[in-house]
Amino acid sequence: MKDQKSALVCFSGGQDSTTCLFWAKEKFEKVEAVCFTYGQKHSLEVEIARKIAADYRIPFQLLDVSLLAQLAPNSLTDSSIVMDKEQPDGSYPNTFVPGRNMVFLTFAAIVARSKGIYNIVTGVSQADYSGYPDCRDTFIRSLNVTLNLAMDDHFVIHTPLMNRDKSEVWQLADELGGLDLVRTRTLTCYNGIPADGCGECLACKLRKEGFDKYMQKRN
Amino acid sequence: MKDQKSALVCFSGGQDSTTCLFWAKEKFEKVEAVCFTYGQKHSLEVEIARKIAADYRIPFQLLDVSLLAQLAPNSLTDSSIVMDKEQPDGSYPNTFVPGRNMVFLTFAAIVARSKGIYNIVTGVSQADYSGYPDCRDTFIRSLNVTLNLAMDDHFVIHTPLMNRDKSEVWQLADELGGLDLVRTRTLTCYNGIPADGCGECLACKLRKEGFDKYMQKRN
Repeated sequence: MKDQKSALVCFSGGQDSTTCLFWAKEKFEKVEAVCFTYGQKHSLEVEIARKIAADYRIPFQLLDVSLLAQLAPNSLTDSSIVMDKEQPDGSYPNTFVPGRNMVFLTFAAIVARSKGIYNIVTGVSQADYSGYPDCRDTFIRSLNVTLNLAMDDHFVIHTPLMNRDKSEVWQLADELGGLDLVRTRTLTCYNGIPADGCGECLACKLRKEGFDKYMQKRN
Repeated sequence: MKDQKSALVCFSGGQDSTTCLFWAKEKFEKVEAVCFTYGQKHSLEVEIARKIAADYRIPFQLLDVSLLAQLAPNSLTDSSIVMDKEQPDGSYPNTFVPGRNMVFLTFAAIVARSKGIYNIVTGVSQADYSGYPDCRDTFIRSLNVTLNLAMDDHFVIHTPLMNRDKSEVWQLADELGGLDLVRTRTLTCYNGIPADGCGECLACKLRKEGFDKYMQKRN
């Protein structure tokens, strides 16, 4: 019988994956974290993830998939590309890294399998996002099947945030007792500023709008 | 309209992918090759691939996915593991690298997309193989859908060898005018010996049995 009591969380130290870490700690007896580095301009992101994992005694593994950035030019890894601040009409912002979630989740599954873990948790969401195709539920379900066929195994990909908008992600963090930690220690900002961030980039705007909305509802 | 006249071949310099290269040259106006290095014990493999591509003026790109070997111990990359010479009952030989074809084809799609190529050719086969799950047609079809969902695109994965046993792969190479080249210049042997190889490993045995069978049929 496969060990259903453990899970591997794809963990970046951002709002979403930190909320997922709290979610997984509630749901599984044993939680581990895997973090991907791919030439992000801000390596502080990785250090923040490592520190949060350490504080909760969660085993933390860092994987270098920088090949991804070399293959697919995008504004998160190439400082010669000016980042889109708004979503272009009928297209994705140039923060889109083609194939990113597919590469991350495939490597996550390989790592998980080597540890005898078959639950994988990812913070992707199709609500309130920039329309990245690899955040959609249909993609994740198809990927789940493909992974199982590739390795003749029975992974289950969990996406606790899939249909939550940002305010509902804040609500979930609050319900799990992680609101303060998520607010003060995570990094979501594309310009690499933790907590409330630069306030200008697309990620900061979504984060703040969601927070304000949840605070209004909460009070 | 997407360019349907070009294809990217996953090319390792072995019998199968070299036959696929001949097949693609016949079928598409423009062919490019992508080769993966992942800590194979025998890097001669890469040099053979590079040389064959150069001789046919096929653009050749090498991608380093050595992360794969670090994550998933196997006898192809870890010389402390003694290679299975026969297929173990009810299991895969320890030459199986979990997730390998999924990682290769995902990166191949990212490379292809960046070049405006949407046809991807791979030499996987479910006939005559060691039962690797990621060589099966069902896996490839599922992967094709997942890739298209991941990148919101329309890749087509071609698998000209899918249902051919080794003798039929030799036959295809012959029909495409590549029999001599495949016989004398490719490397399939797990022990890194080109052409007829060591004659002892599983790959050499399959290659030779197929060749003998095809020669009997041909003469």
